[in-house]
Amino acid sequence: MNITILFGGSSYEHEISIVSAITLKKVLKKSNPSFIFCDANREFYLIDSKNMKSNHFSDGAYKKDKKLVLKKGAFCTEGMFGLKEQDLGTVLNLIHGRDGEDGKIASLLEFNDIAYISPRVDASVLSYNKLYTKLYAQSLGVKVVPYSLLNSSDTRDIELDYPVIVKPVRLGSSIGVSIVKSADELDYALDVAFEFDSQVVIEPFIEGVLEYNQAGCKTTDFELSIIEEPNKEEFLDFEKKYLDFSRDGKVSDADVTPELKTAMQETFKKVYSDIFAGSIIRCDFFVVDGEVLLNEINPIPGSMANYLFEDFEGMVKRLSSALPKESSIKIDYSYIHSIQSAKGGKA
Amino acid sequence: MNITILFGGSSYEHEISIVSAITLKKVLKKSNPSFIFCDANREFYLIDSKNMKSNHFSDGAYKKDKKLVLKKGAFCTEGMFGLKEQDLGTVLNLIHGRDGEDGKIASLLEFNDIAYISPRVDASVLSYNKLYTKLYAQSLGVKVVPYSLLNSSDTRDIELDYPVIVKPVRLGSSIGVSIVKSADELDYALDVAFEFDSQVVIEPFIEGVLEYNQAGCKTTDFELSIIEEPNKEEFLDFEKKYLDFSRDGKVSDADVTPELKTAMQETFKKVYSDIFAGSIIRCDFFVVDGEVLLNEINPIPGSMANYLFEDFEGMVKRLSSALPKESSIKIDYSYIHSIQSAKGGKA
Repeated sequence: MNITILFGGSSYEHEISIVSAITLKKVLKKSNPSFIFCDANREFYLIDSKNMKSNHFSDGAYKKDKKLVLKKGAFCTEGMFGLKEQDLGTVLNLIHGRDGEDGKIASLLEFNDIAYISPRVDASVLSYNKLYTKLYAQSLGVKVVPYSLLNSSDTRDIELDYPVIVKPVRLGSSIGVSIVKSADELDYALDVAFEFDSQVVIEPFIEGVLEYNQAGCKTTDFELSIIEEPNKEEFLDFEKKYLDFSRDGKVSDADVTPELKTAMQETFKKVYSDIFAGSIIRCDFFVVDGEVLLNEINPIPGSMANYLFEDFEGMVKRLSSALPKESSIKIDYSYIHSIQSAKGGKA
Repeated sequence: MNITILFGGSSYEHEISIVSAITLKKVLKKSNPSFIFCDANREFYLIDSKNMKSNHFSDGAYKKDKKLVLKKGAFCTEGMFGLKEQDLGTVLNLIHGRDGEDGKIASLLEFNDIAYISPRVDASVLSYNKLYTKLYAQSLGVKVVPYSLLNSSDTRDIELDYPVIVKPVRLGSSIGVSIVKSADELDYALDVAFEFDSQVVIEPFIEGVLEYNQAGCKTTDFELSIIEEPNKEEFLDFEKKYLDFSRDGKVSDADVTPELKTAMQETFKKVYSDIFAGSIIRCDFFVVDGEVLLNEINPIPGSMANYLFEDFEGMVKRLSSALPKESSIKIDYSYIHSIQSAKGGKA
């Protein structure tokens, strides 16, 4: 399998994307992937596999690697005699947060006709924005956690009972998120969240709620991971987050009833639908009174949630052969020709 | 004002984008804009202003113009000594339909730090897809035409009374749209619509409904166009559509009550909100029983609806100075440095 991991990006999650990529190097070692780093300035570099260590990026040494320009059909190196196309196979988009999850990288790759594993542009926009995720889920009949929406210019009145959780609509990895236990803490939490976005969603914080993660994709059919009951700590500090994004050991299946397992699997498939074709995503569910609620869609989960799959490397290969194709549009200028002949060729 | 019209694209509306661009050459003549053509194969060409005639594109002569590569910071020509940056100012995205309206062009320009007039990626996805437009509008408390959604794999049962109108969720300019007068015509209309998309929305077709268009943008404040009562013909044939996309003459304000006018203006502002910052859009409203319903958002209207504005050229200039800026994200590798020191520098 000819596969390239694209990581980095102009994102608050730039650094954990590096950690994710280093982890996938280990996980996909039989495939011997190539690596493209998108630096903070959005320049692309082709990184030699032996340089896939975090300090290669943090100390700027990557700048000595080959710079790439993306043009129609290929990433290219810029040389003495013009642009030279690189044969990099399928690109796996591993940029967490902005650029990677907001639809920009998907757009760049789709427009330039590069085969890629990632949510497409519409799926990215719907899953990156927590408000749109809720609207999308509700349109499918999938239940979501109730919420209020607040714009930075709105008066700060909320009708929910405390404790609540405050989230910027467009960030992942708990950035800018606070649990607010009483009204006098709300202002500060909103100030923090509005540092990162002009809209926030506010949800009831359900202490000890049952939480489960289900990852998967669709190759010839759905390939679903085991269901994990994630770490219950309120927030992960950097050390724990590092461990979380660098996970490659297998975890065990959550202890849930067959009925609940089926309900989560069916909800995952409904959410994935056709629009997530070409991507490996993770749905984070809450279970309240036996009902499955979609909490969030993680369009590019840390290290692609590899540890939840029995045969992650094989699945990536199968997905790489089952990527959605853009419909081709034939442009024959029949419309302009008609106008020209109607106007005597003077259009 | 240094402005460049970007037009064409891999889109069913490629040809009418050419017509739109030729029209804007006339409308923006004081600004003497530059032109970038995106051909059917998604290659960019810098088109000499004197070549802005439809046959230059339909007969392939544009291929002799300079080819452009988009890289960080600029469109570049590829020459003997590498890539040469072109100083093209603000790019006005005039690609109708796929590429231009679906978020891909916005992504390319945003990622590469090119100043541009266009809906941003999230606004594009919400307005290009007729289903998402409805979900978005409803979340704002804006009324929409009631609808059913049908996937190509669904059984073809609908609960609406005839006549209905069938629309692919993701196409503009009436492509794939049919009015269905009775149940025996439904199958054919769905076959046509599913040629273009895997999802369709079906709405009641309201004969003789009052229909109004309101265009506008936000510079230092909202700049709203006059309100137009558009052509009432069911469908425009190519000749009429040509006239529609090449309009540059002024039209007169629709004859509506001050209350209704205000209601449409306020609905426009609510829809435009913050997410359409940087773009000139047109909202198409229905008025039923005195209530304003959002029919569609046209994210890149034909010839930018220039004919609805008193001072279109001045407005483009003002908008060009009021474009939204991406927030800058500082990446200092503090997280990786912490891990490295925790691990004794061996991360």
